[in-house]
Amino acid sequence: MIGRLNHVAIAVPDLEAAAASYRDTLGAVVSEPLAQPDHGVTVVFVELPNTKIELLHPLGEESPIANFLQKSPSGGIHHICYEVDDIHAAREHLTEQGARVLGDGEPKIGAHGKPVLFLHPKDFFGTLIELERV
Amino acid sequence: MIGRLNHVAIAVPDLEAAAASYRDTLGAVVSEPLAQPDHGVTVVFVELPNTKIELLHPLGEESPIANFLQKSPSGGIHHICYEVDDIHAAREHLTEQGARVLGDGEPKIGAHGKPVLFLHPKDFFGTLIELERV
Repeated sequence: MIGRLNHVAIAVPDLEAAAASYRDTLGAVVSEPLAQPDHGVTVVFVELPNTKIELLHPLGEESPIANFLQKSPSGGIHHICYEVDDIHAAREHLTEQGARVLGDGEPKIGAHGKPVLFLHPKDFFGTLIELERV
Repeated sequence: MIGRLNHVAIAVPDLEAAAASYRDTLGAVVSEPLAQPDHGVTVVFVELPNTKIELLHPLGEESPIANFLQKSPSGGIHHICYEVDDIHAAREHLTEQGARVLGDGEPKIGAHGKPVLFLHPKDFFGTLIELERV
């Protein structure tokens, strides 16, 4: 069912410093910061040959990562995103297997303009998993 | 400098359950468990089209992930590994930029039989980074 690893998302307390570190210290290609007010984050994309890293910083008052940074002020890996071909079939299979989909269970339009679901980290060994339809 | 994302390593308290979950619930191709006593872990590889996930469970008394699981008993993402072409040049560049290499700073032979370095998570927003020479 799951396909490519679409991205690894890392929450960071200082987006400019994190982008500079990936660009200058790790020598990667990084994008300009992109505000995504509908998703409560500003994102810098780190382009790798086979996938991407997304550096996330809270934007606005209801950011989904503000809580995470309160618990882990220096930042950390927030979630990983796997691609699926059919997000409704994926959801059906997952819930049949007893995995919990976060929120009301309906796919939402994610930060890349495509339908996404998030799965409960308790069902996946402490890892928050996003599924994105490609 | 950094190239492909080689793998994402997830520490899990129950390797059999985690492998079953990736295989049956997420529908991925998973390997048999592989004991790596030199590295203090038993690993299950989850093969994705563009990279892999490594499910890690402590092996032996000096496992590098035993501590992690004591702090996060349900598990969690332990590190991410980027590929580099020249690990000595990478180390030189990183230390010039003020990043700290863990241990004595010398590359060690990692779990894939290739030289690796680990970078201090405090220098990378709470993310433990492994560099592997390819």
